[in-house]
Amino acid sequence: MKKILLSLLLVSTVSFAQSDDEKQLKSIYSTSLTNGKSYAWLDHLSNEIGGRLSGSANAAKAVQYTKAELEKLGLDKVWLQEVMVPKWERGAAEEAYMITDAGKTELRICALGGSIATKEGGVEAEVIEVQGLDDVKALGKEKIQGKIVFYNRPMKPDVISTFEAYGGCVDQRYAGAKEALEYGAVGVLVRSMNLRLDDYPHTGSMSYGDVPADKRIPAAAISTNDAELLSKQLKKDAATKVSFTMHCKQYEDVKSHNVIGQITGSEFPNEIIIVGGHLDSWDLGDGSHDDGAGVVQSMDVLRLLKETGYKPKRTIRVVLFMNEENGLRGGRKYAEVAKEKGEKHVFALESDAGGFTPRGFSFDCSDENFAQVESWKNLFKPYLIHFFEKGGSGADIGPLKDDQIVLAGLRPDSQRYFDHHHAENDTFDAVNKRELELGAATMTSLVYLFDKYGTKRSKKIKGK
Amino acid sequence: MKKILLSLLLVSTVSFAQSDDEKQLKSIYSTSLTNGKSYAWLDHLSNEIGGRLSGSANAAKAVQYTKAELEKLGLDKVWLQEVMVPKWERGAAEEAYMITDAGKTELRICALGGSIATKEGGVEAEVIEVQGLDDVKALGKEKIQGKIVFYNRPMKPDVISTFEAYGGCVDQRYAGAKEALEYGAVGVLVRSMNLRLDDYPHTGSMSYGDVPADKRIPAAAISTNDAELLSKQLKKDAATKVSFTMHCKQYEDVKSHNVIGQITGSEFPNEIIIVGGHLDSWDLGDGSHDDGAGVVQSMDVLRLLKETGYKPKRTIRVVLFMNEENGLRGGRKYAEVAKEKGEKHVFALESDAGGFTPRGFSFDCSDENFAQVESWKNLFKPYLIHFFEKGGSGADIGPLKDDQIVLAGLRPDSQRYFDHHHAENDTFDAVNKRELELGAATMTSLVYLFDKYGTKRSKKIKGK
Repeated sequence: MKKILLSLLLVSTVSFAQSDDEKQLKSIYSTSLTNGKSYAWLDHLSNEIGGRLSGSANAAKAVQYTKAELEKLGLDKVWLQEVMVPKWERGAAEEAYMITDAGKTELRICALGGSIATKEGGVEAEVIEVQGLDDVKALGKEKIQGKIVFYNRPMKPDVISTFEAYGGCVDQRYAGAKEALEYGAVGVLVRSMNLRLDDYPHTGSMSYGDVPADKRIPAAAISTNDAELLSKQLKKDAATKVSFTMHCKQYEDVKSHNVIGQITGSEFPNEIIIVGGHLDSWDLGDGSHDDGAGVVQSMDVLRLLKETGYKPKRTIRVVLFMNEENGLRGGRKYAEVAKEKGEKHVFALESDAGGFTPRGFSFDCSDENFAQVESWKNLFKPYLIHFFEKGGSGADIGPLKDDQIVLAGLRPDSQRYFDHHHAENDTFDAVNKRELELGAATMTSLVYLFDKYGTKRSKKIKGK
Repeated sequence: MKKILLSLLLVSTVSFAQSDDEKQLKSIYSTSLTNGKSYAWLDHLSNEIGGRLSGSANAAKAVQYTKAELEKLGLDKVWLQEVMVPKWERGAAEEAYMITDAGKTELRICALGGSIATKEGGVEAEVIEVQGLDDVKALGKEKIQGKIVFYNRPMKPDVISTFEAYGGCVDQRYAGAKEALEYGAVGVLVRSMNLRLDDYPHTGSMSYGDVPADKRIPAAAISTNDAELLSKQLKKDAATKVSFTMHCKQYEDVKSHNVIGQITGSEFPNEIIIVGGHLDSWDLGDGSHDDGAGVVQSMDVLRLLKETGYKPKRTIRVVLFMNEENGLRGGRKYAEVAKEKGEKHVFALESDAGGFTPRGFSFDCSDENFAQVESWKNLFKPYLIHFFEKGGSGADIGPLKDDQIVLAGLRPDSQRYFDHHHAENDTFDAVNKRELELGAATMTSLVYLFDKYGTKRSKKIKGK
C-alpha cells in the first residue's frame, strides 16, 4: 500500500514537472513570436552590414555589432576570443563566355572560395564535361590535358533532405580542381550546388590540398541554367570553348574574433552549454540564411531565457563562430581554448541550416543521452517539432566532440535552403520572420531542457 | 510448432505487404520530384491565365485549360459539371486617403469580395476603431452612426497554426459590415488578415446576409502597415477622417463548371475516391497558392498513380471545384449531383492550404477510420510527413459529409500562407517547385493507401 502511494506520489510529481515544462515552452514560443529580437538583429546584420567573409571589413563590423548587442542583454559576461583567419577576396566581377560557331554567349559564373585568379587575359580552352572525380581519373591525361573540366553532376532531386543531396555532390566543388590539375586541366567549372534551374552561381569552399601555388588552376561555379546550356552545346559540338576571367586573391591570415556571451549557471557553473552559429558568410549575398539566421537565433536563446524569467542552473553561452565557411578556425579555436582551460561542455547546439520553419534536431551523442531527448518529444508536439534523429550536428561545434558531450544541430525545413545557399540571393527578404522566430524558440526550449535536467555527463560530474 | 510457423508466415506476409507500400510511396515521391507536372501546370494557370474569380473570363479559361490537360492524361473519363456561380467585379482600382490636419495620406485598400461600390465621389467620414463585432454592439448607434468602422483586431502571432489565428479574426471581414450597418455606420475598413506588417491589402468574402441593397455599406480591407498608421493617427486625433472610393459591382449569376476527371476502379468501380482543389481564385494576385497549388497537385495525383503503374481498385476522381471563394457553389453542386445519382464516396481529399512543404493531413472521420490512418504513419516518416490529426478537411468536400465517408485536408506548413492569401502577392514566384511536388506526392500516397485498403465504409459495402 505504501509502495502504491509512493508510486502515485512519484507519478504526480512527474506529471507536475511535465506541466511546468509545458508552461515554460509555451512561454518561450510566445515570447519569441510576440517579442523576439532575432528578426531585427538579422535585418541589421544583413542590410546594414551585409556579406561577412572572414577577414573582411564587414566581418569585423559584425563582430563589433553582435558584441554590442549582447552587451545590451545584461548577460554575466561578454567577450571576444581572438582567432587568426584566412583572408580571400573575390576582387572585380568574374566574366565568362561560351564560344561557339554562332558567337559568344555570356555565362554566369563566380569564383569558388580559395580559387586562384586566372592569368591576365583569362583562360580559354575546350571544355570536357564529367559527372564527377572518378570520370576525371578514368579519362586521364589524354582527354583532360589543356582543357577546362566541367563537373556537371546535379544534386539528386528525389532525395527528401536537400542536405543529403548536397553531400552527394559537393566533392566536385571542394576537390574538383585538385583532381583535374593532376591530369593537366587548365581550369574548372562546377555546376552550382542548387536544385533549381536559375541564373545564380553558388560559391563555396574548395581546396588545392598541398599542391604548390604554381600548379594550381582557377575554379568557378556556373549557374544551373548555364550548366544546362553548356552541356547541351557540348553535345552538339564537343570542340566548344569557354573563356573566363577571375581576379580573386588569397592574402596572409588576419586577426579576427569569435563573439561569446554568457549567463553563469546558478547551481553548476562549471557545466557549460553552448548555442551558436557562424558570424562569417560568403560574399555574394548578405548571408541571411547562412548563417545570419543561426547567429541571431543563438543570441535570442539567451535573451528568451531571461525574458521568460528562467534562471539557468548551468552556464549557458552563445558562441558566434568566425570562419566556418572557409577554414573553421573559429570552431577549432573555441574547442582548443576550452580544452586548455579544462572547461566541461555538456551540451552544444548549432543552427546552421537556414532560418526556415524548424522541424527538429539531429544529435551526435550516446544512446543514453538520446533516450533522454526522446523522452521530451511530446513537449515539442504542439509546436510541430517532430524530427529527433541521430546524425550530424554542426561544423563549428564538431571540435568539442568527446564521448560524453551531446552535440545537436537545428534541423529546419530544407527544401528551399539550396535555392539561396552561397549565392547572391541569400538575402534578408528570403527569411520569414515567424519561421526564424520559431527556430529561436525551438532552440531555446532544448537548451532549457538540457539545463534543467542535465545530461548523462553532467550527472556523472555531479556524482563525483 | 505449426502455430509458430503460421505466425511466422503471417508476419512475413504482413511485412511483405508493408514493403510493397514502402516501394510504392518511394516511387510516387521520386516520380513527383523528378517528373512531376504540377509546377508546369501551375506556371500556365498563374502566368498565362492569372486570377480566376468566379464568373470571369479567366475562370472560363481555367476550366478549358484544365479539362484539356486532363484529357491528355489518358483517363477513363473527363467532363464538365455545370454550376451557376455569382459574379462580382472589382472594377477600377480603389482609392483611399487618411485626412488629417497635415493633409491627405494615401492608404492601401481593396474592396472585400461582395461589397457594394461607394456612392459616386466616395465615402468620407470620421473613423472609429474597434477590436471586433462585440465592440460595435457595445458602442451602439451613438458612437457608430455616420462613421467608418475600422476593425483592427490582428491575427494572434503566438498561435502556431496560422489558420487558427485566421479563424480567430475573420469574422471581422465576413460579418463586420453587416454588424456595423445596424448601428448606422457608413463604411467599413478591416485590417488585412495577414500576420506580417506590409503594404498588401488582402481581400476575401464578406456577406450582408439578408440586408436589402439600399441599406448596405461599402467594405474594404486595409494593409497591415496602413492599419497601424491609421490606428496611431486615431490615438493622436479621434476626429481623423478617411475617404475611400470603390467601383465594385455584383452581376447576375452566370454559368460555370466544375472540371472532373476519372480513373474507373478495376474491382470496386462504385466506390469513389475524390481529390481536389478549387479552380477559382481571388482577382488581386494570380491565385498560385490559393488554390492553383491544390488544383495542379490534385491533377497530378491521378497522373502519378498512372506514371507509377498503379491500377486503382476503386474509382479515383479529380474534382476541380468552381467558386470556393465566394459561394461554394461548385462544392455544393458536386455533392448534390452525387446524391442524386446515389454515388458512394468513400474518401475525399482536398488541398486548399497553399503549395508549401506538406506536413500531413487533418481528418474528419470516424475513430475507426482514423485508427486505420494512424497505422500508416510510419510509411510517411521518410518523407517527414508527421501530422495526422482529427479536425477540419476542406470547404469544397464538406458537403459530401455523412457518417461514413473519410474527409481529409492536406496540411502544408502554414507559416507563410497568410503573407500571400487573397493578396496581390499570391503569385507563382512565391511557390517553390519541390514543396509543391512533395505535396502532390503526399496526397497521391494517401489516395493510394485508401484505394488499396478501402475504408470502414467500403468494407461494409463489400460485406453486403
